[in-house]
Amino acid sequence: MADVRVSAASLRTAATGIFVACGVSEEDARLVADSLVQADLWGHQSHGVLRVGWYADRLRAGVMQSSTKTEVVAGLGAVATIDGHDGIGQVVTARAAEEALDRAAQHGVGVVSVRNSNHFGTAAYFTRMAPPRGCIAILTTNSSPAMAPWGGRGKLVGSNPWSIAAPIGGGKQMVLDIANTAVARGKIYLARNQGSEIPDGWAVASDGTPTRDPATALLGTVLPMAGHKGYGISVMVDVLSGVLGGSGFGSGVSGPYQAERPGRSGHLYLALDIAAFSPVAEFEDRMNALVAELKSGSREGADPVRYPGELEDLAEERNLRDGVLLPERTVADLRRVGEELGVEVLA
Amino acid sequence: MADVRVSAASLRTAATGIFVACGVSEEDARLVADSLVQADLWGHQSHGVLRVGWYADRLRAGVMQSSTKTEVVAGLGAVATIDGHDGIGQVVTARAAEEALDRAAQHGVGVVSVRNSNHFGTAAYFTRMAPPRGCIAILTTNSSPAMAPWGGRGKLVGSNPWSIAAPIGGGKQMVLDIANTAVARGKIYLARNQGSEIPDGWAVASDGTPTRDPATALLGTVLPMAGHKGYGISVMVDVLSGVLGGSGFGSGVSGPYQAERPGRSGHLYLALDIAAFSPVAEFEDRMNALVAELKSGSREGADPVRYPGELEDLAEERNLRDGVLLPERTVADLRRVGEELGVEVLA
Repeated sequence: MADVRVSAASLRTAATGIFVACGVSEEDARLVADSLVQADLWGHQSHGVLRVGWYADRLRAGVMQSSTKTEVVAGLGAVATIDGHDGIGQVVTARAAEEALDRAAQHGVGVVSVRNSNHFGTAAYFTRMAPPRGCIAILTTNSSPAMAPWGGRGKLVGSNPWSIAAPIGGGKQMVLDIANTAVARGKIYLARNQGSEIPDGWAVASDGTPTRDPATALLGTVLPMAGHKGYGISVMVDVLSGVLGGSGFGSGVSGPYQAERPGRSGHLYLALDIAAFSPVAEFEDRMNALVAELKSGSREGADPVRYPGELEDLAEERNLRDGVLLPERTVADLRRVGEELGVEVLA
Repeated sequence: MADVRVSAASLRTAATGIFVACGVSEEDARLVADSLVQADLWGHQSHGVLRVGWYADRLRAGVMQSSTKTEVVAGLGAVATIDGHDGIGQVVTARAAEEALDRAAQHGVGVVSVRNSNHFGTAAYFTRMAPPRGCIAILTTNSSPAMAPWGGRGKLVGSNPWSIAAPIGGGKQMVLDIANTAVARGKIYLARNQGSEIPDGWAVASDGTPTRDPATALLGTVLPMAGHKGYGISVMVDVLSGVLGGSGFGSGVSGPYQAERPGRSGHLYLALDIAAFSPVAEFEDRMNALVAELKSGSREGADPVRYPGELEDLAEERNLRDGVLLPERTVADLRRVGEELGVEVLA
């Protein structure tokens, strides 16, 4: 199927309209829409407006509350636990980030554990809130089971994404944002929507045999990155995200593709106030020296070495200029969801 | 070359004697010796007494101070920055861990950044200090450059190990401890000492071609785990460990194999007081449920699924009973170092 280019602004308007029609407040709808469109701008379509319909389904089914009511249920000065009460993951997480950043400004570090939240889109959307405030952020989340435990069988371990963002200076950031699977499940959904094969090493079928067919892979199990290391990281991310604060963990977490169960996803947002450790200007000088050193390893005649997050910034610049490239099916899905809700979308 | 079995107690005595002969205090020498022998007990010989000679060389060369003088140079209530003044990595890190755990007990979280330290052995030795005190610990460190930046060439990125430990209850812990390379360099040194080949995918020669020869690999570059993800993780670990607190970073860090330069290694120790988030007993119930769920994925006729850190506990039990299995060359090296220092070792 062909791809089409759509401006970020019109995608934001479309997604906001759909969420408002699902009963979400204008402010919250804008946040969720922006987080999804931002993923498309960064070139991560698997986490972009492709997901609008799934969010709408969950809102309409009532397993995700259209009105997000967060509550601080425990905490000392530097730490807090927030109950998301099945609200929208993005709204819950943005509030948790604000809370952690405020506490970091006071105490040098702020840590917020979130329980009973939902899928929040891309983790980097929230860690990138920290560098403009002079902070480094670490955000972890658990997600619905997607892969087998190392040496075992069955979907028992989530892909459990995490992100770290730090300022480089000049408004730039260094940003890591990864899942612990060899590939994000969303990329397999995208391949199915695009009608393309998936590469070797991404997934196995339900009987454990390798597959390149996205539909077969979606019935099977995604493989962990880096073997036992990826398994171990994913389990520990679940401990930090779900077990610590009393949220769902393991099979107790449901994904954004399921419209019939509360997500019960847990997150951990950790903010470090750089100035509490060393002067920010000196920190940024060191970051620039690190970037320069990494780039000194570029090979002649090849693309320059990139620092983590740089490719996303380059994609954003390109997509803001040219429009976001989306499969026609994704646009058709958005229009269909809009029609169902009586909202004119991407007219 | 054949392997021999040596008791943990006699290895501790041997290593302690060697460090004391290098001018280290009895207390500090015991800590360093215990940390190395503990790695052997866990089955990680690459981080075990194999390294005693390298530590002795660095102490005798004066690039690592035999008397470790740590100094708190910055900090608020919940956070601190410690300067290790080129002291012994294990001693510096144990003090940083105590500092972070004390602060966590007061503030719910404690974060200590360490600058100008040295290689500290295995990270799990220090994160495992947290669970008996009701805490989860995260420890990161940078290390000397070992791999090329993703898409580039040259040794520019360290393996930068990190560890997370959390209590399961009943004195048990769940523990992750990994480097971001496809393999720890120490395992290639061990293969060279054992005269064995290394597997495919561990390393490339200096010209970028794959190799199974450990000596060729040691002149070349270790590969990152999980491609660009391992590269990204490693760079961010350097940001947290070295850049944040003003320690060495990138090529500014020297390894334990080099006797001619200060290490300038940086660490970040982060302790979360579980009780500040949810009651510890409930946390441990959830940890046990998570372990049970992971084990439910065990395949019939195969080894049971293990939780992170379980294999190390099983190895320790076995090695405490039977003695640690070491290559004869490692024992011969220990005796030689002892002779040079006038200490009788493993007589």
